[in-house]
Amino acid sequence: MTDHLRTLFEFLRFPSVSTDSTRADAVRDCAAWLDRKLKQIGLKSEIHQTPGHPVVVARNGERLVGRPTVLIYGHYDVQPEDPIDLWHSDPFEPELRDGIIYARGATDNKGQLLAHVLGVAETIEQEGELPVNLIFLFEGEEEVGSPNLENFLREHATELACDVVAVSDTGMVGPGVPTFTYGLRGISCLEVDIVGPSADLHSGVWGGAVANPASVIARLAASLHDAQGRVAIPGFYDRVTPLEDWERQAWADLPWTDEETLQHTGASALVGEPGFSELERRWARPTAEINGIGSGYQGEGSKTIIPARAHLKISFRLVPEQDPAEILDLAEAHLRAQHHEGVTLSIERGHSGSAYLMDPHCGWGKAAQLALAETFSGTEPALIREGGSIPIVQTFKDVLGADTLLLGLALPDCQIHAPNENFPVENFEAGIRLNRSLLRCLADGFGDAAR
Amino acid sequence: MTDHLRTLFEFLRFPSVSTDSTRADAVRDCAAWLDRKLKQIGLKSEIHQTPGHPVVVARNGERLVGRPTVLIYGHYDVQPEDPIDLWHSDPFEPELRDGIIYARGATDNKGQLLAHVLGVAETIEQEGELPVNLIFLFEGEEEVGSPNLENFLREHATELACDVVAVSDTGMVGPGVPTFTYGLRGISCLEVDIVGPSADLHSGVWGGAVANPASVIARLAASLHDAQGRVAIPGFYDRVTPLEDWERQAWADLPWTDEETLQHTGASALVGEPGFSELERRWARPTAEINGIGSGYQGEGSKTIIPARAHLKISFRLVPEQDPAEILDLAEAHLRAQHHEGVTLSIERGHSGSAYLMDPHCGWGKAAQLALAETFSGTEPALIREGGSIPIVQTFKDVLGADTLLLGLALPDCQIHAPNENFPVENFEAGIRLNRSLLRCLADGFGDAAR
Repeated sequence: MTDHLRTLFEFLRFPSVSTDSTRADAVRDCAAWLDRKLKQIGLKSEIHQTPGHPVVVARNGERLVGRPTVLIYGHYDVQPEDPIDLWHSDPFEPELRDGIIYARGATDNKGQLLAHVLGVAETIEQEGELPVNLIFLFEGEEEVGSPNLENFLREHATELACDVVAVSDTGMVGPGVPTFTYGLRGISCLEVDIVGPSADLHSGVWGGAVANPASVIARLAASLHDAQGRVAIPGFYDRVTPLEDWERQAWADLPWTDEETLQHTGASALVGEPGFSELERRWARPTAEINGIGSGYQGEGSKTIIPARAHLKISFRLVPEQDPAEILDLAEAHLRAQHHEGVTLSIERGHSGSAYLMDPHCGWGKAAQLALAETFSGTEPALIREGGSIPIVQTFKDVLGADTLLLGLALPDCQIHAPNENFPVENFEAGIRLNRSLLRCLADGFGDAAR
Repeated sequence: MTDHLRTLFEFLRFPSVSTDSTRADAVRDCAAWLDRKLKQIGLKSEIHQTPGHPVVVARNGERLVGRPTVLIYGHYDVQPEDPIDLWHSDPFEPELRDGIIYARGATDNKGQLLAHVLGVAETIEQEGELPVNLIFLFEGEEEVGSPNLENFLREHATELACDVVAVSDTGMVGPGVPTFTYGLRGISCLEVDIVGPSADLHSGVWGGAVANPASVIARLAASLHDAQGRVAIPGFYDRVTPLEDWERQAWADLPWTDEETLQHTGASALVGEPGFSELERRWARPTAEINGIGSGYQGEGSKTIIPARAHLKISFRLVPEQDPAEILDLAEAHLRAQHHEGVTLSIERGHSGSAYLMDPHCGWGKAAQLALAETFSGTEPALIREGGSIPIVQTFKDVLGADTLLLGLALPDCQIHAPNENFPVENFEAGIRLNRSLLRCLADGFGDAAR
């Protein structure tokens, strides 16, 4: 095993699950590890406390004029490992099998984050300095919607001022296909709780006379879509920006087929909004998904009760120019308008973030695409949007005024957010090369790109 | 504490949860305890193995001519204790607080079963013999629908032949109101499983292109009822026997108000099938209830996934002359007709049993009502049906040809099947007196009743 891999394995062993308050110590330890690593490679690094998990900021020294300032963002927190019984190995004890690293966070985002760190380390070691003013910004709350990062950016706007941002937290169309992502979906989340009787009731004794919270939650959940699969919340699509013709054409030409989506998801058929291709549905159309629903007895056998409570977790994926807060207003109005007697409905809003869209043909975009081509033996990068959300990207635009170059290295079967998350060693190594090309291309293109 | 209470507490300490295969030993130990107890009081008792949990049968000797043979049925298994965190004391370590016994099974059915045993013990002790040919039949699978008892009855039909059956597993309209139950709802259960993608998917990356099993299960669950609360399965009501005028009137006159249902359930409003009173809805109208629904992430915080699977537990309460198997056919056809693409639906049928209805004005009915009045200082018994199901009661009619006298002592706030199940000591003692009166009244009325 190489030193680089050994370092990655150390990083992956922290169960830095940001949504789980019982793991706050692991998140903090992970930040401390990262801070030490950044200092070891010669950067000035500092851990900043927030009301939630810490932010780690590192830089290569004072800003030098005539060089671009490049902020590279990543996150060291990870999704929960649940359902644990579907993992073939311990999610927090990385394993290398057939050239692939298996661990929670291997791709999302520890592997991709660390590739940038190690690329910088190699450049400093071999060339004595970097060609850019570099800022690393690593947070521990991306998987819970970065609730404290916007404030952090605003409070530290001067020291974080930059010309462009780079993030490797997106995917490649396929192995060996360098991919430049110019758009992301936004997100907004809410949870619904239904309270009915004061305790679970015998469904024979009381059934027929009192409302069943499980039935109510099911009706609310079912009301999110119409029979054709469109989101049925009034006003949901009102602000949606239509796809442009060039991108529909470009995506249709991509080396990606519906068969591959079936294979990667294991679904038996593709379904979705009428009138759009599979990629259009995932990259440029908004959705409402139920992430969790629960009520009553879910164990072995039967338990003939009317459950006392029910809950529902919903997340919306949003596209330009949907406003996350407005979408939650519309959703809440839609749910509350349904008037279910005999139960109490409460709604709690979760994290949210706007969709992002940049012009892939701008100067920084071209410089990044050049670095991608260099990294992958001259192959022309695919230009895509992605269905996932990195809400902070739009916040970089709003607060720092900088566009973000999305240069991800995840493959479609890296199982991010799922059991058996993995990252090929070859992509990890490509990430290190990409960092080195990127900093050089951005430095070379500074004159043009900054226009 | 009296000896009787000490004996009951011993009985309640067995976690004899029949639906939970990890507790099979506790169920078996409970049967063995009961068998020893029956032998101690002078009966001939035997444990019979079944493909599931054992049956305990005891009798007072050879059948004597000129006396009725009375079969008293009960069950020593209990419902799961879940949700455990809502209990104020350990469900399997009984506590006496303010004259009330708190434990799983205190009312349903260990307390009521044991009252019969102790009544018989007192009669034998004080009078040397019983006035009837007695058969005790106690099973360990009532809470999972008595899957092996019908076969057991058929195999032992000769030795179990009887003139009438008595069961204390029903309720009283209120404290001090003796209650004779002449009807029960039936039941049939099914579970639905939906399988979508081969693992939980990232809802950003894949959302919009694949079916979400949580949405599908919600739509299936919501399809069980129309907007007015009627069951929406085609044909569901076709065989329902309408209520008779005398019973609608009798129930309207009962000392029971909607307010009491609100208070006992903790529901904020009563809801249900239009055109029926609250008692009619619970006692004489069929229902479809969701007992459990689950899919995806149900822990703290958010997890933005498309769940791989979803499941749903449904039970139907049935009334004469609905056929449980036909209802499951109709339900399955209704669910399968909904054609959700991209997921696999599977349905598993659970336990079922027919509704029961007898003529409360027959000879045995009158004898039982006399015993009830004696036990409760001469108060005239209320004549009711009940919403719960004791499927074996109809099987007694079918196999043994005997009607069942339902002489329950549960109060509406005994929390059966729920956290903090409880049984007042005064009802436990009434049960012992009732057993003694009952055997005498049945013996006295034998000539008339047997006509």
